[in-house]
Amino acid sequence: MDLVAGILEGNRRALAKGITLVENGEPEKYRILAELHPHTGKSMIVGVTGSPGAGKSSLVDQMTKFYRKQGRTVGVIAIDPTSPFSGGALLGDRIRMQDNTLDPGVFIRSMGTRGSLGGLSRATKEVLTLFDAFGFDVIIVETVGVGQSELDIMDTADTVVVVLTPAGGDIIQTLKAGIMEIADVFAVNKSDLDGADRVVSEVNKTLDLSHGEWRPPVVKTITLDGTGLDELLAEIDKHREYLISSGNLEILRQKRLKEEVTGIVLHKLEDMITLRFQQDRQVQGLLESVVNREQDPYTAAQSIMFSLESWLPESAAESS
Amino acid sequence: MDLVAGILEGNRRALAKGITLVENGEPEKYRILAELHPHTGKSMIVGVTGSPGAGKSSLVDQMTKFYRKQGRTVGVIAIDPTSPFSGGALLGDRIRMQDNTLDPGVFIRSMGTRGSLGGLSRATKEVLTLFDAFGFDVIIVETVGVGQSELDIMDTADTVVVVLTPAGGDIIQTLKAGIMEIADVFAVNKSDLDGADRVVSEVNKTLDLSHGEWRPPVVKTITLDGTGLDELLAEIDKHREYLISSGNLEILRQKRLKEEVTGIVLHKLEDMITLRFQQDRQVQGLLESVVNREQDPYTAAQSIMFSLESWLPESAAESS
Repeated sequence: MDLVAGILEGNRRALAKGITLVENGEPEKYRILAELHPHTGKSMIVGVTGSPGAGKSSLVDQMTKFYRKQGRTVGVIAIDPTSPFSGGALLGDRIRMQDNTLDPGVFIRSMGTRGSLGGLSRATKEVLTLFDAFGFDVIIVETVGVGQSELDIMDTADTVVVVLTPAGGDIIQTLKAGIMEIADVFAVNKSDLDGADRVVSEVNKTLDLSHGEWRPPVVKTITLDGTGLDELLAEIDKHREYLISSGNLEILRQKRLKEEVTGIVLHKLEDMITLRFQQDRQVQGLLESVVNREQDPYTAAQSIMFSLESWLPESAAESS
Repeated sequence: MDLVAGILEGNRRALAKGITLVENGEPEKYRILAELHPHTGKSMIVGVTGSPGAGKSSLVDQMTKFYRKQGRTVGVIAIDPTSPFSGGALLGDRIRMQDNTLDPGVFIRSMGTRGSLGGLSRATKEVLTLFDAFGFDVIIVETVGVGQSELDIMDTADTVVVVLTPAGGDIIQTLKAGIMEIADVFAVNKSDLDGADRVVSEVNKTLDLSHGEWRPPVVKTITLDGTGLDELLAEIDKHREYLISSGNLEILRQKRLKEEVTGIVLHKLEDMITLRFQQDRQVQGLLESVVNREQDPYTAAQSIMFSLESWLPESAAESS
């Protein structure tokens, strides 16, 4: 089976295989992603983030159902931080989504971090490319809203939904996590609980103090019965219309494409250098001298930078 | 004032200046870090992590006071995730620490993420080098325990304290965040609340299923009145004794030094490449062709990799 043709034809097995290939970092992934690229850029990419316990997974589940009612197909990328040791994702939250997974218009993928800093955001971007080429109308990317790599991932979304709850201190935690300012739409979830209106007015007060050209709307949602879901989806569509009419969507996407190229080059260099470090006797000797405290890491790094001259061009050619 | 001499003499102003220099990424930082390096490796490095709201800041505050009672000096590196837009850290939690900051045996530094993935863990490692050379007996690194860069930072600690509370779902959140398995010591904080004993027994049940050579002890703490703090500090010391007697401390530190060198080389290459990308006409042309969708990012990255041959050695020499 040709993976590229399969994905473009909407074959789910091809998509699943493509994701595995990307997650495992197989070298052929670059050819596949390259061939798929001309077919991307059509999906609406929605990021959903918020503190642990805000009910993001259930909200994403409901959003998926409501998009399906509108006849739109949905791809979900759910990022579960995983142990650096086990390498496996805890999929508890995803079990509830069984309903949606039986629907051929929905594809859900949980991703682990695989222990490498930056690796998660790279793999997420690559899976986004696969989903986009596959032809989903909407792609939802869900992350726990704390931590730098999660902020980085939200950077790939056209519209970011920040999920809050009436729970004590939620706004403070959100402020601390730095996700308040990346919101395009706020969802105050579990809004049947006491204090929901207080949270709405606190968010609005914060927005009164400062917001950009687009003022993020604040929508009250209840995941259990779907309250506010139609409004939430409408606000997301409105934000997208704003992005298109203002020309910001094009600017965002151009910026992202440039960053993607830079990221790929850095990633390839990193792989190359890590491999070379393990093989190069001079580098091994320098590392040993650092371990023995005969040399400091900074001077050793400088020596390695000099030695790049002798081997980098060669291995740059090799890696092609 | 010579910064290096100042830091080695225990001059706080020199230390503060050094940190600013490192955080701003001034080029001279490498010289300073290189000169300080032979004087490092003496501090005990304790990581403190846990879900938002677990009371980490207050616990670190109390730990600091208890270490001071033992006559040990303490450096605290507190990592507040910040907005990628404002670039400023929210220092609310730190205000409570005023007591400690008036003590010349204590130095507290809050760090922001400055928006760059991987930048935070790099800067944290550099500040650790400064603190270590300054001569603190104990260095506490505190992070919000969710997210990949935070896991990466905890990798720099000799002993990791994972803070839990009796609050509902705290263990599940901790498991999801992947920090359960990096714990060397568990602190069940706010243990005056209902359910503390249940949390202790749940953690112990998890440990019964799997633990390494070192079985993490579980200590109940109450930050307000200092309950359990003596025991917590004793367990941290015991873990350090174990690390030393088993030879694991040396293995850990060697591994870290090697990673540090690799990290510095990659960081320098990244800076070099980013700068070069902005200046190189061929690269700019390739980026434009990607933006215009005439070329995919992967093929463009490959072309850039080839062009590295012509300019990388030269700029490698330049950056020295």
